[in-house]
Amino acid sequence: MVEPAIKYRLIKKDKRTGARLGEIITPHGTFPTPMFMPVGTLASVKSMAPEELDELGANIILSNTYHLWLRPGEDIVQEAGGLHKFMNWDKGILTDSGGFQVFSLAKMRDISEEGVKFKSHLNGANLFLSPEKAIHVENALGADIMMSFDECPPFSESYDYISKSVDRTSRWAERGLKAHLNPKEQALFGIVQGGGHRNLRERSARDLVSMDFPGYSIGGLSVGESKAEMNRVLDFTTPLLPEDKPRYLMGVGSADALIDGVLRGIDMFDCVLPTRIARNGTTMTSMGRVVVKNAKYERDFRPLDENCDCYTCKNYTRAYLRHLIKADETFGIRLTSYHNLYFLTHLMADVRQAIMDDNLLEFREAFFEQYGFYDKNPKNF
Amino acid sequence: MVEPAIKYRLIKKDKRTGARLGEIITPHGTFPTPMFMPVGTLASVKSMAPEELDELGANIILSNTYHLWLRPGEDIVQEAGGLHKFMNWDKGILTDSGGFQVFSLAKMRDISEEGVKFKSHLNGANLFLSPEKAIHVENALGADIMMSFDECPPFSESYDYISKSVDRTSRWAERGLKAHLNPKEQALFGIVQGGGHRNLRERSARDLVSMDFPGYSIGGLSVGESKAEMNRVLDFTTPLLPEDKPRYLMGVGSADALIDGVLRGIDMFDCVLPTRIARNGTTMTSMGRVVVKNAKYERDFRPLDENCDCYTCKNYTRAYLRHLIKADETFGIRLTSYHNLYFLTHLMADVRQAIMDDNLLEFREAFFEQYGFYDKNPKNF
Ligand SMILES: [Zn+2]
Ligand SMILES: [Zn+2]
Repeated sequence: MVEPAIKYRLIKKDKRTGARLGEIITPHGTFPTPMFMPVGTLASVKSMAPEELDELGANIILSNTYHLWLRPGEDIVQEAGGLHKFMNWDKGILTDSGGFQVFSLAKMRDISEEGVKFKSHLNGANLFLSPEKAIHVENALGADIMMSFDECPPFSESYDYISKSVDRTSRWAERGLKAHLNPKEQALFGIVQGGGHRNLRERSARDLVSMDFPGYSIGGLSVGESKAEMNRVLDFTTPLLPEDKPRYLMGVGSADALIDGVLRGIDMFDCVLPTRIARNGTTMTSMGRVVVKNAKYERDFRPLDENCDCYTCKNYTRAYLRHLIKADETFGIRLTSYHNLYFLTHLMADVRQAIMDDNLLEFREAFFEQYGFYDKNPKNF
Repeated sequence: MVEPAIKYRLIKKDKRTGARLGEIITPHGTFPTPMFMPVGTLASVKSMAPEELDELGANIILSNTYHLWLRPGEDIVQEAGGLHKFMNWDKGILTDSGGFQVFSLAKMRDISEEGVKFKSHLNGANLFLSPEKAIHVENALGADIMMSFDECPPFSESYDYISKSVDRTSRWAERGLKAHLNPKEQALFGIVQGGGHRNLRERSARDLVSMDFPGYSIGGLSVGESKAEMNRVLDFTTPLLPEDKPRYLMGVGSADALIDGVLRGIDMFDCVLPTRIARNGTTMTSMGRVVVKNAKYERDFRPLDENCDCYTCKNYTRAYLRHLIKADETFGIRLTSYHNLYFLTHLMADVRQAIMDDNLLEFREAFFEQYGFYDKNPKNF
């Protein structure tokens, strides 16, 4: 049996929750978990330089197989020497499988056992993605961690549909494993689906665990359901996964959901949220959400977050950020993006420290209180 | 008499041309001339951080009085502690007077002796700018170097119109001098106008020199006339200016025009060109213009400019730049902007060295040849 490209080392389990402190050992470094991974859809975390990502504490970034397959094409990335070299980032990279984009962006898709026919969201061209094709693209991109090609049905889809979809996703995962050419350098994760149904999540997890992937993702969450619903599903799903493998909850990036995911045993998270909201002048601070674009910050010469040591908060005022964002100046987006990513990577560092100190539940209470998640009308992030 | 805020020190005159090596001593540092100044219209050089501008060799940047007056308002910048503090840049800053924008951007203007009534290009609001108002705004912004409020008529405007305009610009310059509250910390330059007419340039220069400004700008060029025409005007205009004051040619940023301006005794240049073309994927390299967005660079894994040591060229390929620009990724614009600004600041360093080495004419020939300015259909930049 081939030694997998990545390994997980469990350092400490929280006595009172499912939280765990660990590290993930990849071909591009060993990184502490739980961790948040910034998203660099098109081989760039929007507006950020790789040196800045390193400086703000990012260790693994996510890139999107679907998007890179269309632009510039995986063959170009491969000729460039792979994604790490192409984008000048020598820490960890994870690629998704393209499945999520096919089901969320593409129009007129036609799903069969073989794969999915659909039209490009860019130019309407006819495209086809299958487990083999997705793995082929991911192998060309060369990320440290790859995702299996899965179907991600809406949370509200019927039980019967999700049940059949889960079985097909398991068969697709098996086909992906066989198609994977590079298991020594790239670790392929299985993705547990099953919507909100406990027995479907159990069946999905059992199928995938039997294939012995080096890591497991939980998909089909953070797709519009409530946070209570997400936590309910995590409560029964994470315990189905092996303790000696990393667990990755896909598409989650709000501070409350990160902490609640950690409490339920999640090690890895990714989301476009911090960079997406930053582009609109919305930021996450130690005192809660600050929409720095708002008029009330026009003459506010304090830092964005007085408790933050990031480049943005050390050097610029809310008034300057507001001015730049209002005037569509790109540098404003750099500054808010930097801060938001710094905020989440440092939140995860605080969470790790809290696990180490056996006070994660107390940390959660204090953080939720201060951020405003207990307010009457809590903001989403 | 008040000691002016900035001084010019002439280090060496070229024996064969009008070029001069010198330095400009400002409240925020002493910087070598001839120099190129990047433009930060709205208190940000588009997509760049101040640390990057410093690193790539920029010493003085230009900001636009008209734009900052409208957004965020000069009072906010003043409350922030001035432009240097607002934007976190502690080297030199120069502000224009707003005149050029009033005459190029605003619609339905109404010029009188008192000033100019016009409508905001942002929201159509009625606005009024006069010499006193422009100086008031520039004093609030607090740049090291300020421009007098001038009229910049089209190059093709009638002799009679330009003649009257020159006289009014001289009267406006005198009013600006009187309105200037802060001459110890901010140096006000006079702007020589006069279109393509030698006797009007002479009259304009004589009027302004008699007012003893600490520096002189040449306006009304690089507004659509040919480069030969611009050089012809410089040939007779620069010698009209005192040797012990800096000379600033406004709005010029193509490599050939910079060198030809230096040959005619210009010390300072500014232009949006390097950052504007960068946003469209057009770059200036040692081998001439490279439109890195073009399909032919899709699989070109060489640096943008093999003779360049900048951050972009040391770390990224043409293929990656092309991909980012095509995909509208901001980081691509950061990388091309960085390179273009680095290219011009380093071109000016080479020009200074050539003056020092007494081989500026030979440098010009070799540079023009290699860049392609002698080609049958030379590109504009
Ligand atoms: Zn911060
Ligand atoms: Zn370069």
